[in-house]
Amino acid sequence: MSILVVGSVAFDDVATPSGRREKLLGGAATYFALAASYFTDVRVVAVVGEDFAAPHECVLKKRGVDTCGIEHAKGKTFRWGGQYLDNLNEAKTDFTDLNVFENFTPRIPAEYKSSEFLFLANIHPTLQAQVRRELSAVKLTGGDTMNYWIRSTPDELRDTLRLVDLLTINDTEAKMLANESNLPRAARKVLAMGPQALVIKHGEYGATIFFRHGAFGVGRHPFRAPALPIEEVKDPTGAGDSFAGGFMGYIASQPGINREVIKRALFYGGVMGSFAVEEFGTERLQSLSREEIDARFQVFRELTHLE
Amino acid sequence: MSILVVGSVAFDDVATPSGRREKLLGGAATYFALAASYFTDVRVVAVVGEDFAAPHECVLKKRGVDTCGIEHAKGKTFRWGGQYLDNLNEAKTDFTDLNVFENFTPRIPAEYKSSEFLFLANIHPTLQAQVRRELSAVKLTGGDTMNYWIRSTPDELRDTLRLVDLLTINDTEAKMLANESNLPRAARKVLAMGPQALVIKHGEYGATIFFRHGAFGVGRHPFRAPALPIEEVKDPTGAGDSFAGGFMGYIASQPGINREVIKRALFYGGVMGSFAVEEFGTERLQSLSREEIDARFQVFRELTHLE
Repeated sequence: MSILVVGSVAFDDVATPSGRREKLLGGAATYFALAASYFTDVRVVAVVGEDFAAPHECVLKKRGVDTCGIEHAKGKTFRWGGQYLDNLNEAKTDFTDLNVFENFTPRIPAEYKSSEFLFLANIHPTLQAQVRRELSAVKLTGGDTMNYWIRSTPDELRDTLRLVDLLTINDTEAKMLANESNLPRAARKVLAMGPQALVIKHGEYGATIFFRHGAFGVGRHPFRAPALPIEEVKDPTGAGDSFAGGFMGYIASQPGINREVIKRALFYGGVMGSFAVEEFGTERLQSLSREEIDARFQVFRELTHLE
Repeated sequence: MSILVVGSVAFDDVATPSGRREKLLGGAATYFALAASYFTDVRVVAVVGEDFAAPHECVLKKRGVDTCGIEHAKGKTFRWGGQYLDNLNEAKTDFTDLNVFENFTPRIPAEYKSSEFLFLANIHPTLQAQVRRELSAVKLTGGDTMNYWIRSTPDELRDTLRLVDLLTINDTEAKMLANESNLPRAARKVLAMGPQALVIKHGEYGATIFFRHGAFGVGRHPFRAPALPIEEVKDPTGAGDSFAGGFMGYIASQPGINREVIKRALFYGGVMGSFAVEEFGTERLQSLSREEIDARFQVFRELTHLE
């Protein structure tokens, strides 16, 4: 099944202990689309500027991603600069130039309206809600958000959360959203806001999915997938979006949703996140094979599997 | 097989979001011994003061723990006060009164000399090394340490680490000991100091075991066990020592060491840690049944198990 992702396409300047790179192709929608492209057809709705050239778009096209929904606007592409020199687990932002992204109004091409899977990457919650309401064929909506929206647009975010089936956020965001420092209690509070399931990403420790009572008929027990201990994290940018792409992409590739599918999806999310951080930007995600992905899936499985 | 633990027996005053308690029976050796007692015979070498009365000792005796190695000295028992009001993951120490523990010199009773399993809980590394050298029958030595010794007695600690087979420390300690912020790289550096295997405890995210090349014939790949998401952590004190008790206790109960035994031991460690935090002090660890423990083991297994 096709999955539509709406979010940012950006250029990133990053500095990590492994080096510095400028104008790397990035953005949540880019990472998500590349990761999901190994599992299912992907369509992107985003906005870029005049500095976004054919070779940039080809990175997505080569992976079979449908880029017809990427709007080319006057001005420059969203640009972000950040560093992970002191702490690989948290970016320190040097600058954020929203550029054309500042006035982004997602326009859904007619041929995308049949999309059954939707991922609302981290954008203004009101835009997320508008997109979701416009797409009546959607069966399953995934979504992300961030501290900025939790703080500055809490009411709009609450509205959006009622439209999201699978929310994927990190520990800090979950605790902030629920105003609760205990993780499973925070999860319960977030689920009461609307989502059927909540994936909390723990960075180098993996992720946990919590379910609303009765959701997807999968039972009420949470499930945890590990992250792989990686000796050289070259660039953590996009790990969470790649996780979401692997997670949602695998779900969209399956004939139905059950507990086993969701469990495997959580592992595939971790797998795609682990590849993403091995090279700067999206480099590693551009040239994987399904065999490499499945081999790493087995490594993840072995990492926690009891006979 | 019998396991001998050498470490602190203490009284703790704790404050957590669930309440305050004074003079709780605690100390690393106490938590370790109670947790391990569900798997194998346990012997304790420690020192207590005149305020340590028969009912305190009976907590251990009722679980079949051999307390003949607990020395009763003049003065007061080691007392620690701490709080977890802001952060359940890290204690804020209010006071540490070493009392009789200040001049603790472990004396190993003759009948303990045949012990084949030894756990050196967090005490001065020179004392740890002395104990290990005195026990020639020991087949497997586990050990713990803390930031204080890593900073103040690095040379003595290096000497001790050459005598420890299984080191169990937390993320912060591993990174500090290796002077390396990347976890798997830190693990490799710590293993180069001596231990055959290193268990890094991640608190609410579980634990990872890293192996030295060729150790126990178990292969070089690390293994991760999850921790259970717990809605009410009443008192985190002793979780790490209970983890170590479950981990080492299970290993000591098995006829031999192989990868599957170590994997299960890591899960049992998590199980005992999860029970410990459910009530203040050692209360929950005093009255478990093996059936409850094995039921929770299954919950832990289900938490990450793929078909």
